[in-house]
Amino acid sequence: MSEIVVITAHVGDFVWRAGGAIALHRRAGHGVTVVCLSCGENGESNLAWQDEMADTASVVATRQAEAEAAAKALGVEDLRILDLGDYLLPKDPEIPYRLAEILREERPSLILTHPERDPSNLDHVRTHEMVLEARMIAQAPGRGRNHVIPAQVMCFEPHQPELCGFSPDVIIDITEVWPAKEAAMRCMPTQRNLWDYYDRVARQRGAQAGRRSARPTLQGEAYQAIFPIILPTLPLGVPA
Amino acid sequence: MSEIVVITAHVGDFVWRAGGAIALHRRAGHGVTVVCLSCGENGESNLAWQDEMADTASVVATRQAEAEAAAKALGVEDLRILDLGDYLLPKDPEIPYRLAEILREERPSLILTHPERDPSNLDHVRTHEMVLEARMIAQAPGRGRNHVIPAQVMCFEPHQPELCGFSPDVIIDITEVWPAKEAAMRCMPTQRNLWDYYDRVARQRGAQAGRRSARPTLQGEAYQAIFPIILPTLPLGVPA
Amino acid sequence: MSEIVVITAHVGDFVWRAGGAIALHRRAGHGVTVVCLSCGENGESNLAWQDEMADTASVVATRQAEAEAAAKALGVEDLRILDLGDYLLPKDPEIPYRLAEILREERPSLILTHPERDPSNLDHVRTHEMVLEARMIAQAPGRGRNHVIPAQVMCFEPHQPELCGFSPDVIIDITEVWPAKEAAMRCMPTQRNLWDYYDRVARQRGAQAGRRSARPTLQGEAYQAIFPIILPTLPLGVPA
Amino acid sequence: MSEIVVITAHVGDFVWRAGGAIALHRRAGHGVTVVCLSCGENGESNLAWQDEMADTASVVATRQAEAEAAAKALGVEDLRILDLGDYLLPKDPEIPYRLAEILREERPSLILTHPERDPSNLDHVRTHEMVLEARMIAQAPGRGRNHVIPAQVMCFEPHQPELCGFSPDVIIDITEVWPAKEAAMRCMPTQRNLWDYYDRVARQRGAQAGRRSARPTLQGEAYQAIFPIILPTLPLGVPA
Amino acid sequence: MSEIVVITAHVGDFVWRAGGAIALHRRAGHGVTVVCLSCGENGESNLAWQDEMADTASVVATRQAEAEAAAKALGVEDLRILDLGDYLLPKDPEIPYRLAEILREERPSLILTHPERDPSNLDHVRTHEMVLEARMIAQAPGRGRNHVIPAQVMCFEPHQPELCGFSPDVIIDITEVWPAKEAAMRCMPTQRNLWDYYDRVARQRGAQAGRRSARPTLQGEAYQAIFPIILPTLPLGVPA
Amino acid sequence: MSEIVVITAHVGDFVWRAGGAIALHRRAGHGVTVVCLSCGENGESNLAWQDEMADTASVVATRQAEAEAAAKALGVEDLRILDLGDYLLPKDPEIPYRLAEILREERPSLILTHPERDPSNLDHVRTHEMVLEARMIAQAPGRGRNHVIPAQVMCFEPHQPELCGFSPDVIIDITEVWPAKEAAMRCMPTQRNLWDYYDRVARQRGAQAGRRSARPTLQGEAYQAIFPIILPTLPLGVPA
Repeated sequence: MSEIVVITAHVGDFVWRAGGAIALHRRAGHGVTVVCLSCGENGESNLAWQDEMADTASVVATRQAEAEAAAKALGVEDLRILDLGDYLLPKDPEIPYRLAEILREERPSLILTHPERDPSNLDHVRTHEMVLEARMIAQAPGRGRNHVIPAQVMCFEPHQPELCGFSPDVIIDITEVWPAKEAAMRCMPTQRNLWDYYDRVARQRGAQAGRRSARPTLQGEAYQAIFPIILPTLPLGVPA
Repeated sequence: MSEIVVITAHVGDFVWRAGGAIALHRRAGHGVTVVCLSCGENGESNLAWQDEMADTASVVATRQAEAEAAAKALGVEDLRILDLGDYLLPKDPEIPYRLAEILREERPSLILTHPERDPSNLDHVRTHEMVLEARMIAQAPGRGRNHVIPAQVMCFEPHQPELCGFSPDVIIDITEVWPAKEAAMRCMPTQRNLWDYYDRVARQRGAQAGRRSARPTLQGEAYQAIFPIILPTLPLGVPA
Repeated sequence: MSEIVVITAHVGDFVWRAGGAIALHRRAGHGVTVVCLSCGENGESNLAWQDEMADTASVVATRQAEAEAAAKALGVEDLRILDLGDYLLPKDPEIPYRLAEILREERPSLILTHPERDPSNLDHVRTHEMVLEARMIAQAPGRGRNHVIPAQVMCFEPHQPELCGFSPDVIIDITEVWPAKEAAMRCMPTQRNLWDYYDRVARQRGAQAGRRSARPTLQGEAYQAIFPIILPTLPLGVPA
Repeated sequence: MSEIVVITAHVGDFVWRAGGAIALHRRAGHGVTVVCLSCGENGESNLAWQDEMADTASVVATRQAEAEAAAKALGVEDLRILDLGDYLLPKDPEIPYRLAEILREERPSLILTHPERDPSNLDHVRTHEMVLEARMIAQAPGRGRNHVIPAQVMCFEPHQPELCGFSPDVIIDITEVWPAKEAAMRCMPTQRNLWDYYDRVARQRGAQAGRRSARPTLQGEAYQAIFPIILPTLPLGVPA
Repeated sequence: MSEIVVITAHVGDFVWRAGGAIALHRRAGHGVTVVCLSCGENGESNLAWQDEMADTASVVATRQAEAEAAAKALGVEDLRILDLGDYLLPKDPEIPYRLAEILREERPSLILTHPERDPSNLDHVRTHEMVLEARMIAQAPGRGRNHVIPAQVMCFEPHQPELCGFSPDVIIDITEVWPAKEAAMRCMPTQRNLWDYYDRVARQRGAQAGRRSARPTLQGEAYQAIFPIILPTLPLGVPA
Repeated sequence: MSEIVVITAHVGDFVWRAGGAIALHRRAGHGVTVVCLSCGENGESNLAWQDEMADTASVVATRQAEAEAAAKALGVEDLRILDLGDYLLPKDPEIPYRLAEILREERPSLILTHPERDPSNLDHVRTHEMVLEARMIAQAPGRGRNHVIPAQVMCFEPHQPELCGFSPDVIIDITEVWPAKEAAMRCMPTQRNLWDYYDRVARQRGAQAGRRSARPTLQGEAYQAIFPIILPTLPLGVPA
């Protein structure tokens, strides 16, 4: 059983966008399962294709190895790469049922995935939709009696937030686990063009979080909740 | 010092809309200050005006007494009624500075107030705006050196949520303190026409919160955050 | 010919969400056709599955019987259950063409269905989309010469309105037919957990409608129009 | 008593934007009061200022005469020009109280005014806000016991609809009263540059309304409702 | 190679909605490729079906001839009609790959297509989605090494802008090429019911553009950009 | 005469948010006038107040000197600091008339200012509103016959974009003038805590702009247009 299931379109997504949350919750002893629908071999592995000898099999192999190393750096033991192909991710009606099986096994209370909208990347949109579909199936008693209470779904930050209508509801302080996230990023040299970009994203979110905090926050990670967040009390800060 | 400052346009607002949160946090030992800008004597005291002998002074006195009783029922010791007049609340530029003084004294990490938009009640809109103005002043070192870290602002649920663009980010379970909230509501017979309405609001929010919870939630209260919520980790539920 | 066609994902939807409008228009002598794409047997029949002997066939039979009884309570003679399966409703490209046939037969000026968006229920989203597709096909002369003028589409209130971006354009007073709607709700004991919830929804919408009305409105039902409403004059109320 | 009160920033607004509705309801025997907060002499009378001899008094006189002629063409007997000045309309806190007095005298069930937003014309925005404020005051028993049930507020179409977030909820067919509206437009030669523009606006809205109507609609007028429209039944069209 | 690729659902769309831009850019010597996914034979050829002898083949032939004539009037040499069928456009997963091939051949920096949303025409919505999918595929090195830099996507104005959430980011002055656009419109007598409508659309957009211009603008065309527009400097107007 | 007028609430704003555009247009020979409504002495000069001897006069003097140095670094000769006070900027009705005078003198075709919405900074909101008011006054012939054609208004990027509903319509490449912007930033040691933050903002916008460009873009600046951008043709990129 995993308290958190992360479902992404491509192997890199869990690192750049949710690596801090993953490391933080693993450190706190929570189970985290990461599911990558594809290796991102076609659309998100440009540097790998600069090798003239590269072919699909070799790029897939490279990206899988990178993903495994990155998962390890974040403390994730349960990484599942479905290798369905990307650019475009297929619209196979069976995929949501496969994902629902995982949700029924892991019984998470929280799912992390892409936001609803992204005009520059329909694979992300399709993943979001399939996550919501899987969540429905997993809660339906007529689809198997081990049905679950539906989990919260939180969306991690996309590459160009305004383009995706992304507006953070929650920012978490990942300063403490930043070395782990940075190490995981470095496990993905195929996308090394993103290293600086996501370093800056983390620092901007850290600065924004730190404005209302008494302690310095160097790095942060932003999330948008699909469903209202159910809390026992209202979130209080640390008054100065 | 109060961890939470509630700022409302009229005396009834803190009861119908934030009574659960207030009682819950008081029970947890947090300081709560309630500031009512007016008594709602002109626009929100219709039943009091049915008495043909009623005049402004008598209605104000009635509503103040009700507010004091309700505050007591919720465990609030610090109730401040500024009695500025309502329908319309005046646009006096000094009011935000008065509110800023309260924020500097109480140094809350959370402010509760009305949402940004309400075409049926511009007093609510004006209050929201003055809260944001007061929050700015309170953090400005040039306005006095006891400046504060700016607090989170969360909006409680308005009477007609869709009309106000209200969409809950957070729902809290107030089942445990419902008797206190209900008692506070009963302290306001001038608005007894709202008793059933807010009983139903609480039950609807309770039912919505309970969908993703393993324990039954009979009553809930909904809030919308103006600023991203800064949390140490992502909010996990109780898996089934 | 039916002036109104109601198209829903599951058998319960027309009762909880449009039962008042259906009863009101039937009482006024208008034809109403109700089309349910599925029985909701997998995802919306939890109480039926608590019987350990239950299987798909038995749950389908139970829900069909309930739907027939509820339709009768509302005065509906033309109920069509397509029984396509739910959680997930299939994405068969032929379904919009089947629905278009119904629109061409019934030639309604108004279609009632689910809103465009519902992250907790993609079957509702899919139904909305197929209704818009069917409406297109039905008006296309190249798809058969008995084509129709495209109908207005109004969305009934979803379970969690803010989650679905639902904002009512129209509220109708259903006080007069409330006994029929309540009776229809009671015809669905499989979803008896919704009885109180939709009783409260009706009362909240009634209270909101009643604010601007000279006569008391105990129960109401809310709708959002997809297309501008074409009226001969502007809607006037009853001045006090 | 007037069933409808129209409140505009400048004298031309009621003609270009609500002339059809005014004529239609006057023809149906409804009382209509038109209140213009200013003559639009500074900002909306460019052609008048081309006369080198023009001064404020002369332009005001010209525009008042035009407004009176236009009102007459639409069948309006009750035209009130408050002549408060424009570009900018003053933010005098007494204006909403004056408007509230009119609402208490006329007791309309419907108010027509500008939309909430218009970055190209803050006078329109200010008028919208003051209408909502006046509506509050008029319903407050503490502001005088002849208080009223709050009216619906519908916004007429602004000059550049998308810029103002204007999206029509209702389109009315004004074909029948188009000659009256056109005559009223011609009573305003100071803004003759708008004649063709609003002729085209009417035809576009007519064409849009006619798509779902069995009868030809040559001219239409579009409105956006601030509050849900309360109707006895759902609006049905004329099936083909 | 074409600097601009226009992709539409039906043959008429490029004329009514983008004819001005096409003519303007052709006149400036830019390559323009127009791709029509269907002939609009089923849903947008009502006048052709009034001929009782009409059948699908004859209507397709008529519309193709009209499209060719219109393209010629606009100066377009590269018109490709894929003839996939309309009302509904099929959801064949191969179509985005076909479009991607065109993008890789033509290597445009700008794609013009329908907006994201249109509840009255899902063929338009589907086209928009397939364009974004094709844009992804075309940039993916794993889908062929002649991959391209992803183009800007701009949406032309839909028939009912507010219904589609269309809000213009850019208006271009098409006064100079209006005769060519008008001639192209006249090449489509099957949709002659739209001639006046789009004449008025052009004049309204022209009037709106002309408000901030020193020179008269009689006709304009409006566009909404999906991605931020990358410019070397900010756009300056012609100061008076 | 200045082609561009920049109007900000506080002295720092033109540097952090529009410094690139200013330097770029100055280098191109365009006139640029910068108007700062206040020195930001109360709310945006925290480091200056750490000096225990600081008082309002000394902080104002420091910030003015910084602003002058920064303006010079950007090539701006026309800097006007109105010194109206901040946190809160006063709501004096004369200010829009003063700004209108500047617009009539400079006759810009473009105004740069803060976005419409910013819950963390109402001074920015107030400035935006006053700019739109001034723009109205400046175009009104009744307010003086040297009236102007109304300028485009573009909003520069706020500190927390999603909080302000900021979504870039235009990104400009400021790589070439980055040294000037960086130098201007360094002229403001009172806000040195922002140096790294806005360095990262520039790099993120640069990276986003560079995705669709054939040449590398290291730094960018983002803008949102209030009014449609009027262009002679559609913006084409540089095809690969």
